[in-house]
Amino acid sequence: MAHITVIGGGIIGRSWAVVFARSGVMVRIVSRRKGAGPAILHDIEGAARRAQAIKPDVAIESILSRISVYEDMAEAVTGAGFVMETVEEDLAIKAALFRDLDHLAPEDAVIASSTSSFGISRFASEILGRHRCIVAHPAAPPHLIPVVEIVPAPFTSLETVEIVYELMQAIGQTPVMVKREQPGFVMNRLQGALLTEMFRVIEDGLMSPEDVDRLISDGFGLRWAFLGPLEGIDLNAPGGIADYLKRYGFMFNDLANERGASAPVVTQKLVGLLHDAMRGALPVSELPRKLAWRDERMASLRALRAKLGPFEVE
Amino acid sequence: MAHITVIGGGIIGRSWAVVFARSGVMVRIVSRRKGAGPAILHDIEGAARRAQAIKPDVAIESILSRISVYEDMAEAVTGAGFVMETVEEDLAIKAALFRDLDHLAPEDAVIASSTSSFGISRFASEILGRHRCIVAHPAAPPHLIPVVEIVPAPFTSLETVEIVYELMQAIGQTPVMVKREQPGFVMNRLQGALLTEMFRVIEDGLMSPEDVDRLISDGFGLRWAFLGPLEGIDLNAPGGIADYLKRYGFMFNDLANERGASAPVVTQKLVGLLHDAMRGALPVSELPRKLAWRDERMASLRALRAKLGPFEVE
Repeated sequence: MAHITVIGGGIIGRSWAVVFARSGVMVRIVSRRKGAGPAILHDIEGAARRAQAIKPDVAIESILSRISVYEDMAEAVTGAGFVMETVEEDLAIKAALFRDLDHLAPEDAVIASSTSSFGISRFASEILGRHRCIVAHPAAPPHLIPVVEIVPAPFTSLETVEIVYELMQAIGQTPVMVKREQPGFVMNRLQGALLTEMFRVIEDGLMSPEDVDRLISDGFGLRWAFLGPLEGIDLNAPGGIADYLKRYGFMFNDLANERGASAPVVTQKLVGLLHDAMRGALPVSELPRKLAWRDERMASLRALRAKLGPFEVE
Repeated sequence: MAHITVIGGGIIGRSWAVVFARSGVMVRIVSRRKGAGPAILHDIEGAARRAQAIKPDVAIESILSRISVYEDMAEAVTGAGFVMETVEEDLAIKAALFRDLDHLAPEDAVIASSTSSFGISRFASEILGRHRCIVAHPAAPPHLIPVVEIVPAPFTSLETVEIVYELMQAIGQTPVMVKREQPGFVMNRLQGALLTEMFRVIEDGLMSPEDVDRLISDGFGLRWAFLGPLEGIDLNAPGGIADYLKRYGFMFNDLANERGASAPVVTQKLVGLLHDAMRGALPVSELPRKLAWRDERMASLRALRAKLGPFEVE
């Protein structure tokens, strides 16, 4: 494809540059900081080197050879096939930028934003080319963590959605669809829910911060490195997720109730949705084999952790 | 030490047997099912084999040679140095069992329960030896996931707490202290909070179940395989966790508020507790080096996942 232009040379912009360039795409980074090019490329080299295990057949030099840093946005965007914006979380700055990009970028180029805070309708609804504007919110940093939330506004065209989704798949990321704009999209809502419960446990004096962290890093984190939490509980009852929720659904309702919720969490509708999704992907008869698959992976991860060692404070 | 007696030959009992035996301890499993011994040992062999990467220098045959299955509890408990109960989650059954164990087990043996549902005070408060009774709730299965919640009752002796804590450390598990008995202890509260948010997102039609899972398995799960969520956010702002909460604390308050909470989550007290804990373990000046440490590990995990491959439905 034509080159991709990344707006912003910060941590997310540099990380996207690695993602695109190691997939063979030419990348132009726009940085407003005068003379920042060499420092940006130096940081990218370090990041690419630490991530080399992900694509060991791609030489660091090839990645670097595909990335250039520009100070002039018009020049960097000329001929671009795709634009990824990664500037600071400021509505006025993003709105002005998208207005400019809509004039400068080729007519058929999609303009995506990496924003984690705002739906695209908050800052691109007034521009002529708004149908080609969309949020593609990465986990940080995207060159290591593949998931990307795709969040269209009501005015975003279906073609734009498809282009972003397929591009992300083609470069080895994992696109997921957020069906409506809302604060925190979905990713940050999930992390927020977990952290909020951790905060409460700590503030209530139930457990030390170090121990609460260990419940994940020496606990669920080993499972979730390979399986989503829903796939995880699907393996924890002989009849799969519907069986699990029949046995343990009361726990979720009790907890939500204690935390101020007014309605039960585990409804018949929810159980039906989860059952259909999980059983559509995997029959119950396959669960024991998947359990063995999971167990071998967790053992391998523990061996990897032991081999790589803990962080040592100097 | 003297042998350990595991009460129950189910999935948790078998898994504990692997944990103890691979650390060199003799194990007696008590199973009420007549003639179940060979089937239990066969399952244990498979589990131990799939977990061999964790302790590659311990032969499967050595593990098996240290495990025997008994039908007679009195015989299995005679001379035991430690007893681990893993029977079904039924208060009456556990109460009767602990009464019996208190008579049968040597006076100085700690009696621990793997219960995930009940504080030990719910079923051991009436027995003479209640000071030596305690909950040691493992993640499932403990031979793969090291974290164990230690939950004393008010009547549990300090010596009992120390014995369990040190035993768990000695055999390679990660004990964490729950300071008060409460439903779900802490582990299941954390998982419950995350799953509850996932359920709501799915029921609201915001995202498909498959995609919600991917936000963890191709997202945060890669981080949490090496770092707790608190350590994770500590790395996501230049000044560490206090800086992170100054920038993004509003997100947690907004989310909790939307879900029915009446008070803010991120308080000054909480920020102080977290800052002291994180900065006591690691100065801010070390954060960039820890970030590089994390990044290399995530890259290695992605390489491991690619090497081991996805689950294939047959």
